Amino acid sequence: METNDQQQESFKEKVKHFFQGDWKRKLHRIIYEADTPLGKLFDVILLILILLSVLFVMLESVRTIDERFHQVLYIGEWVITIFFTFEYIARIITIKKPSKYIFSFYGIIDFLSTIPLYLSFILVGSNYLLTVRALRLLRVFRILKVTRYVGESNKLVKALRDSRPKIFIFLFAVLIISIIAGTLMYLIEGEASGFKSIPASVYWCIVTLTTVGFGDIAPVTPMGQFIAAIIMIMGYGIIAVPTGIVSAEYAKSMEKKNQDDPSYVHVNTHACWSCGALKHRDDADYCHRCGEMLDPEDEF
Amino acid sequence: METNDQQQESFKEKVKHFFQGDWKRKLHRIIYEADTPLGKLFDVILLILILLSVLFVMLESVRTIDERFHQVLYIGEWVITIFFTFEYIARIITIKKPSKYIFSFYGIIDFLSTIPLYLSFILVGSNYLLTVRALRLLRVFRILKVTRYVGESNKLVKALRDSRPKIFIFLFAVLIISIIAGTLMYLIEGEASGFKSIPASVYWCIVTLTTVGFGDIAPVTPMGQFIAAIIMIMGYGIIAVPTGIVSAEYAKSMEKKNQDDPSYVHVNTHACWSCGALKHRDDADYCHRCGEMLDPEDEF
Amino acid sequence: METNDQQQESFKEKVKHFFQGDWKRKLHRIIYEADTPLGKLFDVILLILILLSVLFVMLESVRTIDERFHQVLYIGEWVITIFFTFEYIARIITIKKPSKYIFSFYGIIDFLSTIPLYLSFILVGSNYLLTVRALRLLRVFRILKVTRYVGESNKLVKALRDSRPKIFIFLFAVLIISIIAGTLMYLIEGEASGFKSIPASVYWCIVTLTTVGFGDIAPVTPMGQFIAAIIMIMGYGIIAVPTGIVSAEYAKSMEKKNQDDPSYVHVNTHACWSCGALKHRDDADYCHRCGEMLDPEDEF
Amino acid sequence: METNDQQQESFKEKVKHFFQGDWKRKLHRIIYEADTPLGKLFDVILLILILLSVLFVMLESVRTIDERFHQVLYIGEWVITIFFTFEYIARIITIKKPSKYIFSFYGIIDFLSTIPLYLSFILVGSNYLLTVRALRLLRVFRILKVTRYVGESNKLVKALRDSRPKIFIFLFAVLIISIIAGTLMYLIEGEASGFKSIPASVYWCIVTLTTVGFGDIAPVTPMGQFIAAIIMIMGYGIIAVPTGIVSAEYAKSMEKKNQDDPSYVHVNTHACWSCGALKHRDDADYCHRCGEMLDPEDEF
Repeated sequence: METNDQQQESFKEKVKHFFQGDWKRKLHRIIYEADTPLGKLFDVILLILILLSVLFVMLESVRTIDERFHQVLYIGEWVITIFFTFEYIARIITIKKPSKYIFSFYGIIDFLSTIPLYLSFILVGSNYLLTVRALRLLRVFRILKVTRYVGESNKLVKALRDSRPKIFIFLFAVLIISIIAGTLMYLIEGEASGFKSIPASVYWCIVTLTTVGFGDIAPVTPMGQFIAAIIMIMGYGIIAVPTGIVSAEYAKSMEKKNQDDPSYVHVNTHACWSCGALKHRDDADYCHRCGEMLDPEDEF
Repeated sequence: METNDQQQESFKEKVKHFFQGDWKRKLHRIIYEADTPLGKLFDVILLILILLSVLFVMLESVRTIDERFHQVLYIGEWVITIFFTFEYIARIITIKKPSKYIFSFYGIIDFLSTIPLYLSFILVGSNYLLTVRALRLLRVFRILKVTRYVGESNKLVKALRDSRPKIFIFLFAVLIISIIAGTLMYLIEGEASGFKSIPASVYWCIVTLTTVGFGDIAPVTPMGQFIAAIIMIMGYGIIAVPTGIVSAEYAKSMEKKNQDDPSYVHVNTHACWSCGALKHRDDADYCHRCGEMLDPEDEF
Repeated sequence: METNDQQQESFKEKVKHFFQGDWKRKLHRIIYEADTPLGKLFDVILLILILLSVLFVMLESVRTIDERFHQVLYIGEWVITIFFTFEYIARIITIKKPSKYIFSFYGIIDFLSTIPLYLSFILVGSNYLLTVRALRLLRVFRILKVTRYVGESNKLVKALRDSRPKIFIFLFAVLIISIIAGTLMYLIEGEASGFKSIPASVYWCIVTLTTVGFGDIAPVTPMGQFIAAIIMIMGYGIIAVPTGIVSAEYAKSMEKKNQDDPSYVHVNTHACWSCGALKHRDDADYCHRCGEMLDPEDEF
Repeated sequence: METNDQQQESFKEKVKHFFQGDWKRKLHRIIYEADTPLGKLFDVILLILILLSVLFVMLESVRTIDERFHQVLYIGEWVITIFFTFEYIARIITIKKPSKYIFSFYGIIDFLSTIPLYLSFILVGSNYLLTVRALRLLRVFRILKVTRYVGESNKLVKALRDSRPKIFIFLFAVLIISIIAGTLMYLIEGEASGFKSIPASVYWCIVTLTTVGFGDIAPVTPMGQFIAAIIMIMGYGIIAVPTGIVSAEYAKSMEKKNQDDPSYVHVNTHACWSCGALKHRDDADYCHRCGEMLDPEDEF
């Protein structure tokens, strides 16, 4: 609770302090930006609260812990949720075009991570949906050297986007293989060994192709095991495909930069006849060292 | 059923409408091509029907669902199968060389995805084979920007084909390792811990090498666990091989494009008879070094 | 048995036929080489016999099958073993330096794949070691377009050899991690949940790091599951390393060829002023098309 | 015990022999360096002792073995620990700045791998922590052709460091996905099938995403299995990312060498004041186009 309390403190002060002068702009700078020390502080506190609240929700689901600390967790959740509610409202009133924030990616996440607890009055168990707050952690990138990470993640996203059609084909193949192999297994194994229905077999097929292999369902008939072996080796080969694609695409996206880097030109092995300087540009007519005209006949 | 009905409607209309004028050509264009709006519509309906029928077959295998909706599913299957039957016949009569279609990849799939239900009168359970219809989903590529996807899949296929000999060697290694390690495990573990026979042990070995690891069979003796550990680490190393191959091959297939970079031309091994300069372009008539005409007879 | 019998036939004939004239050289050519039709036939028969014998041994270990076909399998094994024995002797007497064959890779395999059955009189169960015959299947490469496959496998082997030091470091890391993490899990989980001893925990660690995950041993305490999660994610990252290494090394080994391909030279975008021909070599002084001297000033 | 005894011998002799003349420097050379034969010998003995002690600790945890050989193992551990204690002290007294060693990576490891046994008087079971000695095995690199391996491992480390931000983003994604998917599974599956709490579900999610798949917890409801399938396929795609990254980074780190290809030089953005030609070499004094001297003041 300790940390939690001090959060509230800092929160109260901030609130008090803002409601004088052009508080809207001030508030906006603090809530939306991480450049001012106060803004940074705010984001850090926010992250801590998010982590705490996610932790609370997770712990609450553990019976033994819930029995002991139910009160603490319950209050904690509410305190944080109320804070988030105020924050959400603040975000809306301190921005010019509220609609723009409300329907933005973060806006929707913020809303979704505030509402469930209120819903829990009507819908039992919906408070667990608070873990969607984990998504709010994405704000962490605002505090880290954003550019760098964002740059990287963009590279990743690009690599993934470039290989989308391939991935699509790949998933399509996995699906078709799973359906057909699943049916086969269903017919061979029968209900005895967990292949209770075709959907269940398809589920097993995906578990196997992805090399997860829970073992909750497993073939017992020699024939079934034989087919399973084939499926596995197939999955083994298949796993190579997306990896290969991504790494190739990713490598390409990296090479791009080096390749058309304009600050590199090809140089040949001509030697200037007056100063002997080497490494002239292919299109050089004069020595870059002594200014003497280069001998066009001069071959190496 | 709703969607299913309207399919039939549109189907009936189409049929009615075609039997005037040169209906064969019309029908052909609609069934075989996806360029005309009607052709596109037809393919879309086809895909929906395929998905539906696969879904029906899968659901029918789930007892709880089958008990409730047996009638619906049964009728649904038949309606779609009859539609497919008509479609199959239509494909045959509207094409010049029926044999060419019948023995084509799609022709065979279409046949296989129609016959099982009729067989189910004779062979019980064979109706489940209807899931082979999933293969018909490959038609989806006809509606999507085919070229692009086909292009990609060709690249993939090419990458896989290029690395076939390696993959072959690789599978060969896996097989031999599995057989020998399997026997070893059988001798060490004995029947107690699920290694009932060498084939079973080999199956376990494949399950382990592919990192699937169901756990339905698992070593219990320290010695067995030791060998298992070695097998796993081997499998771990082995998994690197196909992935490495595919990604390398795939990367190469991408670079290919770069290679026929216009600023590189192929040079031959002609030697200029006057100055002996080498590496002339294939289409060179004069020596790039001395300007002497190259001997056109001089072929190697 | 049928195939098996005819093998013997062809074998007997061969034998009869050889014992006239310089039979040693003849025999040598047939046994050691796969160029002559007879040599090829011999190798093909050999492969079939190897496959058969491996199959026999495997089936014999399946109780249900063994009970029914014990006689058949037993005789089959002996027939093939005797054939292999004769072959082994033949290989020794038809080669100049027997020692050279005996201690060669294949020589040892051939011996190991012949002896177990004889040992089975003394050592019960040793006949199962006959599956080592699987190694003899490597001879298949003699019949296939060897060069090509050997070439490929050499490339693979080279890639693996080049990345040996890395792989070594990698395995070393895996081992140390496993030992320490294993001890930790043993202390945390205790005997209750299968972590009976440190070696067992280390075994579990390897099972987990390699993402095999049998599940015969699995953490039950929250703390144990937490550490397990960390181990898994580590294993997840670790799996990337050998794959990355191999694919990079392999890619390099492929690029090698393309890179220093001497039949490609860089061409520039000069245009001959008399004939306008393009794509001249960087060091070209005369147009390769019309022999006109190229303007050294001519810049693009 | 035999080997163990002789270790002590050689140890005693060494000790005796050193305490005459400038023994500190001698000792230092032997303990810290592996160049002198004696130094090498010392390191080899050290490694053997480390392996032995780790082995002892592991075996001691196996009840059956411990019951039989408790005495042996117990004494063995103590003998080795005492040797390590002396070694540790020796390392401190023979180095100029002891603090430098004590707080170095190896210094801490050496301390941690000596203390646990002494602690075991106070803390029961802490002696198992002796397995931390496994870390001491890293000294092996001192005996192997260090440079080479260190070089390799540096390359690896570099590749990993370069891809740190990506890996971070990647782990971040895995974590968030696990939390949200875990909650979902908890709500869908309920306590029945092992999803006892959200943390447990998150643990399951990580087990699944990493394709380990113990199967100790597994979904049973169709809905749960459906979501699980999606998670697996996601994990399947995700596994491609770190592998792709590492291999790409690694490949780059290898290409680096190629990059400082001598036929490429860096060019700056100077503009010749007479002809305005650009892209002059950094060390160019004259314009490669017009031969005019470049303005040395002209810096950007």
